[in-house]
Amino acid sequence: MTPVRVILAGYGAVGRSFHALVASTRKDVRIVAIARRAGTAADPAGLAVDPPFVSGRDAESLVRDVEADVLVEALPTNLKTGEPGTSLIRASLSRGLHVVVADKGPMARAYGELSQLAREKGRELRHEATVGGAIPIFHLLQRGFAGNPVRRIDGILNGTSNFILTRMLEDGLDFGPALEEARELGYAEADPTNDVDGFDAAAKLTILANSALGLDLTFDKVEREGIRGVTGSAVRLAREEGYAIRLIASVDARSGEAAVRPRLVASDSPLNVGGVENVLRVETQHGGAFAIRGAGAGGPQTATAVLSDVLALRRSE
Amino acid sequence: MTPVRVILAGYGAVGRSFHALVASTRKDVRIVAIARRAGTAADPAGLAVDPPFVSGRDAESLVRDVEADVLVEALPTNLKTGEPGTSLIRASLSRGLHVVVADKGPMARAYGELSQLAREKGRELRHEATVGGAIPIFHLLQRGFAGNPVRRIDGILNGTSNFILTRMLEDGLDFGPALEEARELGYAEADPTNDVDGFDAAAKLTILANSALGLDLTFDKVEREGIRGVTGSAVRLAREEGYAIRLIASVDARSGEAAVRPRLVASDSPLNVGGVENVLRVETQHGGAFAIRGAGAGGPQTATAVLSDVLALRRSE
Repeated sequence: MTPVRVILAGYGAVGRSFHALVASTRKDVRIVAIARRAGTAADPAGLAVDPPFVSGRDAESLVRDVEADVLVEALPTNLKTGEPGTSLIRASLSRGLHVVVADKGPMARAYGELSQLAREKGRELRHEATVGGAIPIFHLLQRGFAGNPVRRIDGILNGTSNFILTRMLEDGLDFGPALEEARELGYAEADPTNDVDGFDAAAKLTILANSALGLDLTFDKVEREGIRGVTGSAVRLAREEGYAIRLIASVDARSGEAAVRPRLVASDSPLNVGGVENVLRVETQHGGAFAIRGAGAGGPQTATAVLSDVLALRRSE
Repeated sequence: MTPVRVILAGYGAVGRSFHALVASTRKDVRIVAIARRAGTAADPAGLAVDPPFVSGRDAESLVRDVEADVLVEALPTNLKTGEPGTSLIRASLSRGLHVVVADKGPMARAYGELSQLAREKGRELRHEATVGGAIPIFHLLQRGFAGNPVRRIDGILNGTSNFILTRMLEDGLDFGPALEEARELGYAEADPTNDVDGFDAAAKLTILANSALGLDLTFDKVEREGIRGVTGSAVRLAREEGYAIRLIASVDARSGEAAVRPRLVASDSPLNVGGVENVLRVETQHGGAFAIRGAGAGGPQTATAVLSDVLALRRSE
């Protein structure tokens, strides 16, 4: 079997973990080029993990010049512009590559345009890693529920804010100290806006709505309220009544309404998942409701979602 | 698009629900023949729900004589012999039909032989409906975790025994009265052995082990202990310590060990699911652990799993 030849853009937690996973487990996938901020590396025979990088070229030049089958786009995410990922994906599809995306920006900002381009070029555009980390939610929605339309999805899609709410719930912390703890543990960034103000969850919800539900939702249309306004006393009060406060992302397939906001969730609800896990509850027309939970983040975990997409390309050829 | 032509064997809760679902939602699937105990019906143009049945022919004669693409086997389950399903599936594969199975008996008793025959004949043998009712567990395991081997599966695979344990937990009932209540609600049969002694869960575990983990497990090798010995006071004691007692089916991919037995499950564990739902916890090598829960039984719900298999045949052609 000829190996699938991969150009990898981005060598952060997910990109490098993907390379390490491929190097240690797959003979049928070969990383032939890598672009990162520090430079690029390329070898038709396949690159080892952490190869020497040379400056002077960029990802677009690799896409133009290197013989390959697929671009894996694992660049840093920019939710405001979707760049530089969007341009790179556009160039790769135009050149006839399949594209596997781990970067939420382009999928939240330009899903319609890019999926249309993929169809025109007869190439696949897959993005399992963009929502729910390692949880194979798109595989599940696109295959497992064939013939059984999804009516609604609710979920916890941001692990950082869920960690903060969990610490507030368990130890009665206020928002500030819980955020501090999340920072110390490396779950929250110096600027936590994307996580605690709901932007990250709204981006994932947009991708779900467009890709899995066939809606035409734009990121800015998602109603969005973060968790900064959730007080320790509100969390305690809810707990006394048998509820948790969770940041829930919801989209309704019929009305198209989409929102991210703190909600009361009954303690025994499938949506009441603590810590940094993600969970999705999928309500179907004929098969009742399902819930799936798992690792919502983490480089090595998310890399499994990228790999499952790359292997799916192989099967579809 | 030419419709997929289906011969349907069995017209109980699942078989008839499948027919009703197809009749109301799919133009690309056509039920051309049905065999049930009362007789058979056939029409190349497609049958309406509840057609008149004529005696004198049986399912094997339909498989021999009717032009079709797939047999849907939804016959009553016999876990001891796997018949009459096994013989009918054998005949159908030999005649060149794809087979979609909802009946656990043949898959638990003759998985190796039948899947080997399917390979030889170049036909597909799918059985999403045999484990977890509507939960698309095989789609998930076979596609979603590509490149990420499953190390272990634990789950609640029998809704009836879980309902009984839930009633014992919630209202402090003893086993006898809880079983009575399950009977009155139609969850338990007059002879509840298959459910409460763990045979049904062991059959499902055997199918999971063979089909999803590639083990060569026989039904009789599954260690099995049911819930008759679980007392109301044991359930109460566990509850006071923050646990529930659940009938857990477990299989380890490396050791091949498989068991169904009552186990203590922490209240906040993903495996602590109440009522008649099913849940599966899947531990993977590279992506952490996942849990998926949903409707584990019910004709209309389980029919969605049958339909997703039939539609997958279409895609693979």
